[in-house]
Amino acid sequence: MTTQIEMARDGVISPEAEAAASAEEVDAAWLRDQVASGYAVLCRNSEHEGAATLAVGAGLRTKVNANIGSSQDSPDEDTELRKLEAALAAGADAVMDLSTGGDLTRIRRKVLRHCPVAVGTVPIYQVAVELASSGKRISKMDPERLFEAIEEQGAQGVDFITVHCGVTRTAIESLERDPRILDVVSRGGAFLIEWILANGLENPLYERFDRLLEIAAHYDMVLSLGDGFRPGAIADASDRSQLQELITLGELQAEALSAGVGVMIEGPGHVPLHQVEANVQIEKELCHGAPFYVLGPIVTDIAPGYDHITSAIGGAVAAAAGADFLCYVTPAEHLRLPDVDDVRQGVIAARIAAHAADVAKGIPGAAELDAEISRRRKALDWKGMLAMAIDSETATAKRGQMLSHAEDACSMCGEFCSIRHMKAALAGRDEE
Amino acid sequence: MTTQIEMARDGVISPEAEAAASAEEVDAAWLRDQVASGYAVLCRNSEHEGAATLAVGAGLRTKVNANIGSSQDSPDEDTELRKLEAALAAGADAVMDLSTGGDLTRIRRKVLRHCPVAVGTVPIYQVAVELASSGKRISKMDPERLFEAIEEQGAQGVDFITVHCGVTRTAIESLERDPRILDVVSRGGAFLIEWILANGLENPLYERFDRLLEIAAHYDMVLSLGDGFRPGAIADASDRSQLQELITLGELQAEALSAGVGVMIEGPGHVPLHQVEANVQIEKELCHGAPFYVLGPIVTDIAPGYDHITSAIGGAVAAAAGADFLCYVTPAEHLRLPDVDDVRQGVIAARIAAHAADVAKGIPGAAELDAEISRRRKALDWKGMLAMAIDSETATAKRGQMLSHAEDACSMCGEFCSIRHMKAALAGRDEE
Repeated sequence: MTTQIEMARDGVISPEAEAAASAEEVDAAWLRDQVASGYAVLCRNSEHEGAATLAVGAGLRTKVNANIGSSQDSPDEDTELRKLEAALAAGADAVMDLSTGGDLTRIRRKVLRHCPVAVGTVPIYQVAVELASSGKRISKMDPERLFEAIEEQGAQGVDFITVHCGVTRTAIESLERDPRILDVVSRGGAFLIEWILANGLENPLYERFDRLLEIAAHYDMVLSLGDGFRPGAIADASDRSQLQELITLGELQAEALSAGVGVMIEGPGHVPLHQVEANVQIEKELCHGAPFYVLGPIVTDIAPGYDHITSAIGGAVAAAAGADFLCYVTPAEHLRLPDVDDVRQGVIAARIAAHAADVAKGIPGAAELDAEISRRRKALDWKGMLAMAIDSETATAKRGQMLSHAEDACSMCGEFCSIRHMKAALAGRDEE
Repeated sequence: MTTQIEMARDGVISPEAEAAASAEEVDAAWLRDQVASGYAVLCRNSEHEGAATLAVGAGLRTKVNANIGSSQDSPDEDTELRKLEAALAAGADAVMDLSTGGDLTRIRRKVLRHCPVAVGTVPIYQVAVELASSGKRISKMDPERLFEAIEEQGAQGVDFITVHCGVTRTAIESLERDPRILDVVSRGGAFLIEWILANGLENPLYERFDRLLEIAAHYDMVLSLGDGFRPGAIADASDRSQLQELITLGELQAEALSAGVGVMIEGPGHVPLHQVEANVQIEKELCHGAPFYVLGPIVTDIAPGYDHITSAIGGAVAAAAGADFLCYVTPAEHLRLPDVDDVRQGVIAARIAAHAADVAKGIPGAAELDAEISRRRKALDWKGMLAMAIDSETATAKRGQMLSHAEDACSMCGEFCSIRHMKAALAGRDEE
């Protein structure tokens, strides 16, 4: 099988590149070249039937991912399918199934079947859950089983996988020499660190990266190189272990590209506002322009219950600075597993951040949406304005709760509507 | 009566400067000097009994204002008092009473009596409502009545007033030569433009700025120089009329400072993310470092129903770049008059933006709050963490809805909690 990168390198515009370019209204040959040079990835496992290709990278619309997935406390698969529906209805470009409760293979199959956008996973969760079910800790993991699980998920149709290949002994040493408030908040990262420390061995995903590349190339799965050392407190951001891991990820990105495997780089996490732009610039530099997939970032730790907002701030600034893919954060973050409404709110907030950034970075067509809704606002065309809103249903319901006596105005200003006054003022002058 | 600026200029640390400096944990002599040079203002009308001084400016914590106020469609004063309570409970540093329905003087008196933080108003609304009640348009306004209304509100105890002094004939000409999608969205601005165009005269608040300064000095009311030409669509941002008005406001700021009157400059509005920082820099430059009071800014027009989020993004970036005072925007913006819950959500979102910015600009003590809540998170001290949350009640309720079987973890990760895994991993290693 030939991968998207191999085709692009051979000058071929694949059907997937063609479709993605058309959806984005960009030139297909340009997109092909972006893929060939690793600046963009096309996530599309041919086993994932009926799914659209997810194109992520520089010059493309900023994409939004929604994490769903069962937990041991909430293993119900129907709930997860309802979250999937909510994420899709709210406009998610991709969904990651992070299930850790119930029959993971079965849930994944269902998610893949019902999901017309790209699906990502974190394969080590499969192994951790299997071990836990027989009362074993992750330190007992057989690396062989991890590679098998990755292969199985590729065969199932997973489009991209998070693999924490940069969690190396060197990075762990960096963490030890430069302590943090919250050492490690990545589950996959913590699993691997536990395994490495308990066994005194190097991370198998790093040591046998060649093997990982073979599997990924076989299914043309994109590797999302996970940030096991992403900061979990803004005080920990941009420190030695985070940067040490990023240096490694940049090296692995180059190897993957040579092997024809697409790579995205995962990023923080919790980052104070004044360091967000620097984080993006450093990733683009160390990782040769590879797409940057940020989790948030959350710009303050003090707002549990509102982390869709803290991450919308960080995500907008990150994406405006060049991040390409935003993993949503829901209002439930740091508190509990998100429910269906949390998922909806998380996707909307991340889409707002992505769009604000797309306007800022000049993605074709982005600013025109703002101009058009504003023209309708000027015309007091409420129906037209509400139809264009990012969440028409919510906006329409809110407006409907309290209508104005002045029919063409709103209940905020009523007859003192500035738009109506300006119309009158300008009409009055024109009559003079 | 001597104003705060006059006292500061005489080297006197007023009781208000002393109290504000103590609340902010900054040096009182430094704050006095900031006030003397116009970099900070102290909003405190001695007639507003029992109110705290509102200190706004460079080097101080970013403050948050909540707009409340009746409208003709919703003139009930008890509702407005409930909004006032909600704004205060959510942590607003100031409240503007923008009422345009019912008995305005009476509502203002009640708001002032119940509000222990600074209260601002837009006096021209009083005049517009009086005219409307006798079926007259604002074009019939007697400028004398406007100055009287300002004087009355000063006597009532209003701490700061928005006056659109920069809405001049020159700025209107700029608007005409450089058309916009949404000409003018400021109500006060639209009133004055209607008056100017209908009467062929200059804005009385500009032409008789000296008279305004006399009244303001008498009550030591801070002037919030309004941005009548603030953009109401991101496509309109940073254009000629906006900048023309800002140039005028900078000139007036210098005059006011000479007369011992404190000034803040009001800012946009709707601004695309990549222009937010420039807007702050230009204000600081043109207005001699005067405090910048921004309305939002909202970074995209496409999200009615979610403008607390679009403005949290813009507000955080603006405040990190040097804006000093954020006017909240609620989820009801562009749709209807906010209700009590909208007020609460608006204040929380603006406070998140303000705090994220305070961390970024290094306001003393800000980052320590994040570090402390993160330490509690590390310790899995849920009670301590929730107590420190910006909205403890909401965070506690969200966590409570779905508790984990693993008592010290949350229902997201349960036994796969990365914090617990890291503890185990590091403990295991230490035993070796």
